[in-house]
Amino acid sequence: MSERHYPARPHVVVIGAGFGGTRVIRALRDADVRITLVDRNNFHTFQPLLYQVATAGLDVGDVTFPVRTLLRKHRDASFLMGTVTAIDLSAKTVTVDGQSPLQYDFLVVAAGSVSASFGVPGVDEYALPLKDAEDAIRLRNRLIGGLERASRAVGAGEPSPELGLVVVGGGPTGVETAGGMRELLDKVLSKDYPELALQGLPITVVEAGPRLLGAFDPQSSASAVTALARRGIEVRLDAAVDHVEPGAVVLRDGTRVPAGIVVWAAGVAASPLASMLGTELERGRVKVQGNLSLPQHPEVFAIGDIAAVPGPNGAPLPQVAQPAIQAGRHVATEIMAAIAGGPSASFEYVDKGSMATIGRNQAVVEFPNGRRFHGWVGWVLWLGLHILYLMGFRNRASTLVNWSWNYLTYDRGARVLARTAIDDVPGHHS
Amino acid sequence: MSERHYPARPHVVVIGAGFGGTRVIRALRDADVRITLVDRNNFHTFQPLLYQVATAGLDVGDVTFPVRTLLRKHRDASFLMGTVTAIDLSAKTVTVDGQSPLQYDFLVVAAGSVSASFGVPGVDEYALPLKDAEDAIRLRNRLIGGLERASRAVGAGEPSPELGLVVVGGGPTGVETAGGMRELLDKVLSKDYPELALQGLPITVVEAGPRLLGAFDPQSSASAVTALARRGIEVRLDAAVDHVEPGAVVLRDGTRVPAGIVVWAAGVAASPLASMLGTELERGRVKVQGNLSLPQHPEVFAIGDIAAVPGPNGAPLPQVAQPAIQAGRHVATEIMAAIAGGPSASFEYVDKGSMATIGRNQAVVEFPNGRRFHGWVGWVLWLGLHILYLMGFRNRASTLVNWSWNYLTYDRGARVLARTAIDDVPGHHS
Repeated sequence: MSERHYPARPHVVVIGAGFGGTRVIRALRDADVRITLVDRNNFHTFQPLLYQVATAGLDVGDVTFPVRTLLRKHRDASFLMGTVTAIDLSAKTVTVDGQSPLQYDFLVVAAGSVSASFGVPGVDEYALPLKDAEDAIRLRNRLIGGLERASRAVGAGEPSPELGLVVVGGGPTGVETAGGMRELLDKVLSKDYPELALQGLPITVVEAGPRLLGAFDPQSSASAVTALARRGIEVRLDAAVDHVEPGAVVLRDGTRVPAGIVVWAAGVAASPLASMLGTELERGRVKVQGNLSLPQHPEVFAIGDIAAVPGPNGAPLPQVAQPAIQAGRHVATEIMAAIAGGPSASFEYVDKGSMATIGRNQAVVEFPNGRRFHGWVGWVLWLGLHILYLMGFRNRASTLVNWSWNYLTYDRGARVLARTAIDDVPGHHS
Repeated sequence: MSERHYPARPHVVVIGAGFGGTRVIRALRDADVRITLVDRNNFHTFQPLLYQVATAGLDVGDVTFPVRTLLRKHRDASFLMGTVTAIDLSAKTVTVDGQSPLQYDFLVVAAGSVSASFGVPGVDEYALPLKDAEDAIRLRNRLIGGLERASRAVGAGEPSPELGLVVVGGGPTGVETAGGMRELLDKVLSKDYPELALQGLPITVVEAGPRLLGAFDPQSSASAVTALARRGIEVRLDAAVDHVEPGAVVLRDGTRVPAGIVVWAAGVAASPLASMLGTELERGRVKVQGNLSLPQHPEVFAIGDIAAVPGPNGAPLPQVAQPAIQAGRHVATEIMAAIAGGPSASFEYVDKGSMATIGRNQAVVEFPNGRRFHGWVGWVLWLGLHILYLMGFRNRASTLVNWSWNYLTYDRGARVLARTAIDDVPGHHS
């Protein structure tokens, strides 16, 4: 790499306040740089716990964290709320909401991923994703709203609308949502709506592949199927979805699975922002070099869900938190090295294991050394590690209160139908 | 009163899940009645703390409580989510959202009050009320959204939009909102938005009457003015609002007070549901007899903000929690007496005092025996009494966590811009 010269206090623009973007910023705390963080939300979302918000175990405030608090720790960091509308790699500018372009010295693209329908008809119209805080509240409201409507219908002597739940996708989000919904329905809502006989309401997990939790060890997959079955959750493997229609998911083999609510947790695709760069993509994800920079652009990095970083087995790293966090730390080091004129290093991913919970007292946790914990021990590990990773003390304390309460009482406090006005939010384009 | 006969397990319909309606239901726990609660929300709102949600001290979940949990304690109680569209006192029916009418044996009208503009031009268009959970989130979002926009403008070298805050109404809500906003701006947001110089941002309380906290002792009013002034909050007394326009409140004397946000806390009016009854009203409130029943309709009661109950000095009781709670308890006793064929009794209101907080370490609390507490002691009393009255353990514990955190760190966790979908909420007509 040729020797480059950067201005005093170079300007680092970070796109995205997810696990990757926030980690870059944290790791640059002592660097002599000016930072601008751009995101369409003014908060970081702890995505692994969104399903808890959807199943009324936690409030949105417990899994979100104001980004400006994070920036306070830097001498010279600012936040720009809005949507990136253009990136010019040769002019080194980023445009937000069509306004005057930001000039950068370093750019970190950490815009994450979006829920992907993979072209399956009816998904956008009739299924609900679970990718951000808004999705989680919408899913919760759809569930509770549907039950209120059903209660009215039954009270008026009319037949109840279809209430069964289908979760498409057998990864951690799908499994955790199905398990959380079962607990919410059986332990809490069945008491709230005695007239609806919610105990044992059909919940189905539909997975196109041959097993649940495909990224885990096959033994963990089998353990998850058993745990779900014991909770009365049907699991359909090798079941590709043909289309979603009002009231049902129709499988390729013609089976029609009735559904009042369809949760679409079948996968994600890189943010469409990837194509703004004009560089080579791999399945929509930005191709990066060994040190996570773009070819011909040593000052531009892509990390997290939006980047295609080859893993140990050659396939890109999974689109979960750990690769983004580790890449964020690496990129901060690269930026500091570039400024100091030091050498560049390749990114080495360290597998820290995987985990997923199926509900009360039941989780699978896998450590990279091959140790696996299922059942109660796994669940306690899962709880502890999630609380540890939740950003900020307040969220931790409040989450602990809510979880202890839920565990001891089988209750969920957060099941009010929130009706929030979305006016006055700048840069809201969805 | 003539002897009446009620069916076995008479049907009690309660309209409104506020302080009055929920108290009627609680007090009927051991009565052999069938209960139907009707409300357009599926939660009870602890209105005295809404200003805390608006000023990002608490989450909505901390001040709301699912009504179905309350109803679980009854053998035969159900909830109907929707808006009352008709009441027929002679047919003894209540119609919800135009659907088939509910037949009642007893009816309790506890529909509360709504924010009233009193015909002041521009209030509906340019001012924000603070009457329900939705209002509180909207106010918080408007504030944070405005700051994000101002930050963008300043970053782009443009002039900042007007950010000053005007609170119209010098009652407890107005005073508490102004005090809470000052803390939020000075201690929290000024660090989040260093570029905006929010410390000392003008906050003005505009009151049409000659003093703040008109229902309190004049010494408490004076103490409140001093405390607000010490916090840099301007108080304008004897200042009636002529109209509200974009960017300003214009007073009757022609003074134009610039305002980025106008909070309208100038007063409330009885719910328009009062006029559905077709009985005599007093300033929009339902006139009731000594035992809180309607003339000619001993089986129909009106309580709380919607009812005009003469107080000790002849004027109707104030539209706050205590009269509603006490009336709820009384009406439950009246219903049980009527079923048992026992005598009816007049409602006796017991003044339990009043309180308002101006911010950190500062509140005024008045007990009916004339004892008054200002400053820190008042503040501790205020905290304790509010936590005591917050319904449900979960809300108490979570509120305690949030408040301790805010107190110890001067931080506010709940300042994310919530973007909640409002679809799928049945009976939502606002």
